[in-house]
Amino acid sequence: MTQFDIKKMLAGYDKKNLTIATVCSHSSLQIFNGARKEGFKTLGISVGEEKRFYDAFPLGRPDEFFIVDSYKDISRYASELQEKNVIVIPHGSFVEYLGAKNFLKLNLPTFGNRKVLLWESDRKRERQWLESAGLTMPREIKDPTKIDKPVIVKYHGAKGGKGFFIAKTYDEFIKRVDKDKPYIIQEFVMGTRYYLHYFYSPIQNNAYKLSKGSLQLLSMDRRDETTIDEVQRLGSIAELEEIGIHPTFVVTGNIPIVMRESLLPEVFRMGAAVVEKSLELFGGVIGSFCLETVVTEELKFKVFEISARIVAGTNPYISGSPYSELIQPDLSTGRRIAQEIKYANKRGLLHEILS
Amino acid sequence: MTQFDIKKMLAGYDKKNLTIATVCSHSSLQIFNGARKEGFKTLGISVGEEKRFYDAFPLGRPDEFFIVDSYKDISRYASELQEKNVIVIPHGSFVEYLGAKNFLKLNLPTFGNRKVLLWESDRKRERQWLESAGLTMPREIKDPTKIDKPVIVKYHGAKGGKGFFIAKTYDEFIKRVDKDKPYIIQEFVMGTRYYLHYFYSPIQNNAYKLSKGSLQLLSMDRRDETTIDEVQRLGSIAELEEIGIHPTFVVTGNIPIVMRESLLPEVFRMGAAVVEKSLELFGGVIGSFCLETVVTEELKFKVFEISARIVAGTNPYISGSPYSELIQPDLSTGRRIAQEIKYANKRGLLHEILS
Amino acid sequence: MTQFDIKKMLAGYDKKNLTIATVCSHSSLQIFNGARKEGFKTLGISVGEEKRFYDAFPLGRPDEFFIVDSYKDISRYASELQEKNVIVIPHGSFVEYLGAKNFLKLNLPTFGNRKVLLWESDRKRERQWLESAGLTMPREIKDPTKIDKPVIVKYHGAKGGKGFFIAKTYDEFIKRVDKDKPYIIQEFVMGTRYYLHYFYSPIQNNAYKLSKGSLQLLSMDRRDETTIDEVQRLGSIAELEEIGIHPTFVVTGNIPIVMRESLLPEVFRMGAAVVEKSLELFGGVIGSFCLETVVTEELKFKVFEISARIVAGTNPYISGSPYSELIQPDLSTGRRIAQEIKYANKRGLLHEILS
Repeated sequence: MTQFDIKKMLAGYDKKNLTIATVCSHSSLQIFNGARKEGFKTLGISVGEEKRFYDAFPLGRPDEFFIVDSYKDISRYASELQEKNVIVIPHGSFVEYLGAKNFLKLNLPTFGNRKVLLWESDRKRERQWLESAGLTMPREIKDPTKIDKPVIVKYHGAKGGKGFFIAKTYDEFIKRVDKDKPYIIQEFVMGTRYYLHYFYSPIQNNAYKLSKGSLQLLSMDRRDETTIDEVQRLGSIAELEEIGIHPTFVVTGNIPIVMRESLLPEVFRMGAAVVEKSLELFGGVIGSFCLETVVTEELKFKVFEISARIVAGTNPYISGSPYSELIQPDLSTGRRIAQEIKYANKRGLLHEILS
Repeated sequence: MTQFDIKKMLAGYDKKNLTIATVCSHSSLQIFNGARKEGFKTLGISVGEEKRFYDAFPLGRPDEFFIVDSYKDISRYASELQEKNVIVIPHGSFVEYLGAKNFLKLNLPTFGNRKVLLWESDRKRERQWLESAGLTMPREIKDPTKIDKPVIVKYHGAKGGKGFFIAKTYDEFIKRVDKDKPYIIQEFVMGTRYYLHYFYSPIQNNAYKLSKGSLQLLSMDRRDETTIDEVQRLGSIAELEEIGIHPTFVVTGNIPIVMRESLLPEVFRMGAAVVEKSLELFGGVIGSFCLETVVTEELKFKVFEISARIVAGTNPYISGSPYSELIQPDLSTGRRIAQEIKYANKRGLLHEILS
Repeated sequence: MTQFDIKKMLAGYDKKNLTIATVCSHSSLQIFNGARKEGFKTLGISVGEEKRFYDAFPLGRPDEFFIVDSYKDISRYASELQEKNVIVIPHGSFVEYLGAKNFLKLNLPTFGNRKVLLWESDRKRERQWLESAGLTMPREIKDPTKIDKPVIVKYHGAKGGKGFFIAKTYDEFIKRVDKDKPYIIQEFVMGTRYYLHYFYSPIQNNAYKLSKGSLQLLSMDRRDETTIDEVQRLGSIAELEEIGIHPTFVVTGNIPIVMRESLLPEVFRMGAAVVEKSLELFGGVIGSFCLETVVTEELKFKVFEISARIVAGTNPYISGSPYSELIQPDLSTGRRIAQEIKYANKRGLLHEILS
């Protein structure tokens, strides 16, 4: 990872004319809408041409499009974008399209701490981070002959959960597994899924206080995955596997949800522990992050993943969620990001939240 | 179909005192609420008596009730309703209660293009429309002995999906089918269901531009169907069929949902193609329409039906959706309809959006 | 049940400085938020210490914390709380933590009619109340050998549905049942679940009129229960039971939902009948209550339970629901409760809505 001097990058910027930019996908409507509400100019990076669907959403349309040949090329336009005083808001598709290496080398001020990528994208380091923070993750099964409870088998780098499968026995595992691809076997945790959308500010102390800064919970959702989440309309998975139909885990959308209030103390305990440990390990997971959890019958959380930036699960809440309404009306995660940048800019603290 | 001269119908109207009317059911609370927000008078057509539940919803209550003996009789009161300068907003129950023939003959200005009914209510023409627009529909299986994948069997005119069933083999089909009723056999598409709520304006160009006018996406939902959508709490469908319990597909409500942003370009491409083809075939599907889709594991859309007017799936969004909030705060489909009428009225274009 | 003279309790109160209080759990964020919107001071009763998560929700934070050693002890602090002019808003956890006996004896003005607890917490009286009001409840099966359709077996006092199970035959029943615990066997009603959130005011006549006062519908939700509501991702219940995995019915959260409008007349008919019967039996179920229903394939309601106070299913609607928006923008159940107290206070009617 190339280390940029963020202060140097910002030195040439016209701080009165910052532009919020992101790639035209994922949660860009929300990011542009939030930035607009906070008075920022916006810029949408798009391949080949302007995306026409923004015409139908005037309040989510960027002020300007920046057309590139390929997302991988964004780095080549860094100086041009610097002249526009661009601050980049990375989202899941941004990082995926650009590629982790290009993203880490991108010579543009970027919201959040880019170092988190090294911990989030490596399953072992992710586990080390979360478990050392005291969170419970699904057990890993090293030896497939030891499968005695339901497991989920995940291939490395499989996009959107494609190819993932569930096995209840070693026999089922052997029947399905593609041994040519690297995989991990994880305990399948029974329970209801909640995707928790946090926001950590290292520079504001007006929320759930941490050793440095404070933590908010802005919303939560449940991911909707094709085909697994509607497969029961046809039959049980075992019945379908028998006729050669295998469920898939490809994310297609998000459903709003709230959690019983008595679980919120634990939600904050977990979020706080993740942030404190991240401060120790790599300077902190700054801004939005999401814990992807299952709540078991004992009302315990098992965390199966962390996403260290804005997730698409925040999209149902473009004008506020049942949680963010308790902070401020009409507050989306996209708007919260813009507020953080505005707050930091006013106080000369941009270097604390950008990287 | 009797062709009315819409200009003649409107000639006698007091354009400063238009009244928005619909039948008291389906999405009428939303329609009255939207009309009220845009400053219209409202009138609720009800059988036998005022519906008392409106008393509990002052902002969704019509200003006036118009009591009829039977919905089939509405036509008889056309001249009385004309004197009240009534514009009718048809919804699914409106058309069903009145009957297609009566609806087509109704001598009252009606929002949208009534001709669409001839294309929408006939399965063959519906398929011709959508497939010639380039949309992918579930395959039809003519010969049941050829069933080699899951299929859904639909009886003609079955209300709310009653009697529909799923079969995975010819044997299952034969065991369940009632050969006395006409039916079709359709490929059962595996995936997650999204019901897409569009709005097409032939007279405004401020959204996703088409050859004439422009297109919006106002919201989306997932239909909730009894018993199929909670049947898994008891067992798999095959297990239940064995003990004589057959799932049904009767709509009871709607759940809010959003879709991953990367699918929106295709959502608009599909909506645009449907409108363009409708302009060619019968003068256009004007106003609200809904594509009922399944998203497969390849992230492709299969469209299993079109509803060519406001659907009940818009009811979760009476004060705006995650999509309409990007157009204007507090914008429901009911309100959008009222805005279209208001806009057309100001510019002398009512004949372009009514029939 | 000790009968307090509510007028005497209120006599010493400074009516210009009422404080809305509840236990810090369940729906307290909504209750404090609603009270704040109506201009009340708020007080949160908490065991041991302030709950830190409120720091993250400034608009849901109580103005003051009142720390107790144990919820069971709240009664001991009654006079101290009286000095603060406290009106208690009971929710499900409040009653559970305090215990029914302590709750009934609590010497503090309490929103709603405490007598309802005697009818709601006793399954027989609950059935008597609802069935004599004309509602249809799931059949009870006295003799397990007569099980010929799916049943659900519920243990008395099982918290959050723990231990409940479903059986389709007598054999399945015998295999699973723990005969040492008292249980009931209930018909398992197939259908989609809707939790209906009503508000009954005995002192305002501006909604759905009853013999005394009027009724509103503020929202509805579907409860999300671990593990039953995601169990289908793994297999059918029968398949899982075979490998020793038993689904549980522990509530973890709530999903927003709306119902087809044509069912609303029946929703109000049921709510009205429940209130009228309650007026007859014990002076009325005042304020919030919830009917927990299943809609069958014939579009009939079966009611499996009543909760006679604010339910956590109202939490998705902290800034309004698709139903309450038709009454007033930004109206949660918590806020509606505060409005009722404010209205009653202005007119000297507090004794009509408190007990």
